[in-house]
Amino acid sequence: MTKNTKVNAAILIIGNEILSGRTQDTNTGTIALWLNTIGVKVQEVRVIPDKERTIINTVNKLRKINDYVFTTGGIGPTHDDITAESISKAFNLNYEIHDDAFKILEAYYKPGEFNEGRQKMVWMPKNAKLILNPTSGAPGFNVENVFCLPGVPSILKSMLGGLKDKIIGGEPILSHTINLRTVESEIAKSLTNVQDSNKDMEIGSYPFFQAGKLGVSIVIRSENQSKIDACILQILKFVNKKKIEVVDR
Amino acid sequence: MTKNTKVNAAILIIGNEILSGRTQDTNTGTIALWLNTIGVKVQEVRVIPDKERTIINTVNKLRKINDYVFTTGGIGPTHDDITAESISKAFNLNYEIHDDAFKILEAYYKPGEFNEGRQKMVWMPKNAKLILNPTSGAPGFNVENVFCLPGVPSILKSMLGGLKDKIIGGEPILSHTINLRTVESEIAKSLTNVQDSNKDMEIGSYPFFQAGKLGVSIVIRSENQSKIDACILQILKFVNKKKIEVVDR
Repeated sequence: MTKNTKVNAAILIIGNEILSGRTQDTNTGTIALWLNTIGVKVQEVRVIPDKERTIINTVNKLRKINDYVFTTGGIGPTHDDITAESISKAFNLNYEIHDDAFKILEAYYKPGEFNEGRQKMVWMPKNAKLILNPTSGAPGFNVENVFCLPGVPSILKSMLGGLKDKIIGGEPILSHTINLRTVESEIAKSLTNVQDSNKDMEIGSYPFFQAGKLGVSIVIRSENQSKIDACILQILKFVNKKKIEVVDR
Repeated sequence: MTKNTKVNAAILIIGNEILSGRTQDTNTGTIALWLNTIGVKVQEVRVIPDKERTIINTVNKLRKINDYVFTTGGIGPTHDDITAESISKAFNLNYEIHDDAFKILEAYYKPGEFNEGRQKMVWMPKNAKLILNPTSGAPGFNVENVFCLPGVPSILKSMLGGLKDKIIGGEPILSHTINLRTVESEIAKSLTNVQDSNKDMEIGSYPFFQAGKLGVSIVIRSENQSKIDACILQILKFVNKKKIEVVDR
């Protein structure tokens, strides 16, 4: 893959606790922001329950239409942690004790503490590659282009650094935000013109409320800084003409 | 639909800003928690970009396999707000000015302020049913079982109340949480036994860190309170036997 190829990914959040509204997912943002920096664009996120058949089908669909798939959740020691077994089935691989993971956790815990519950965490698809966990020992793993990470946000975050060599991205995805003191309807038409004359750029418009005042953030995203700069100029042109206050840019 | 039927829903978050990691989605939690109270269970969440073809295909897939679909985002006045037009195409309906929505916004804005940008917000699928917006005027809408809500969390929240009569749920989904001072591996086996003897119950185990201490939340979810109570008893039985501290329940 050369540096100019567009590289995309899907994120698959596995967990009833997100679907029930009990837990707020923050892993999507963490993974997406990190992927931007290495030139991988998230195309889709799905949240699904802890159901084996659903995990298998969804993984098998996503891994075929994306360069990378990142799963979060379901790799702990309890009965509802079924990600590793489901991924094994998705790839038709044996679900078995991973020798290196076993050694890592055997060394991580004090003698006698590496009990049956914890040993569940070294069961993985045969020949899975490990993703090291500097926070709490138990590694994640990948099979081909599917990378399985834990659900606990602080642990997940600490493991991303170790992934860098395993993922080949494209050009980093750059973004620039212009914050205006206006409302969307005021700039809608002019912004449409800018988008129409820059079809390959991703231009988003997002209303915000800050310190009791309304505003609009315009976000321009692309791998190409000079194209972003050109968009900025076109936007500032109509902003000045309309005498709209620029809060920051 | 009788009160005992299981009723399910999908949530479809439409917006590049979530996929890029710029904005943290909170609407999933808001909608899911509200749906629990009226007996509708969220089966799946998808986050997709502001791309017409993707919106059409995803809506058409989800609306056939779920009782209800809730979309968020993309119903504002700017060029990247393409949900209403995409839903029109998904249902093969004309995308046109909705007379009632027009009247609502004409009355909402001061004379002269209901400009071209804002008028975009009254373009909807033909014969869409309106969802009133007590916060900022512009209504959402539904076509059959697809309910389109805005992306701004505070506005979305204020519109849910108006949906109640449009959605027929099942029994409210109840949940009970037991917080224990332990680690997951300590209780994994016993909890598996409880799950195995209560196959129709949703029992989740979630590690937490609070005030510098590790703990585990066990969450039991069901429409049936007496089955939840039975699970609680079985859990407390092994908890007492293992002399694990119950933080709260």
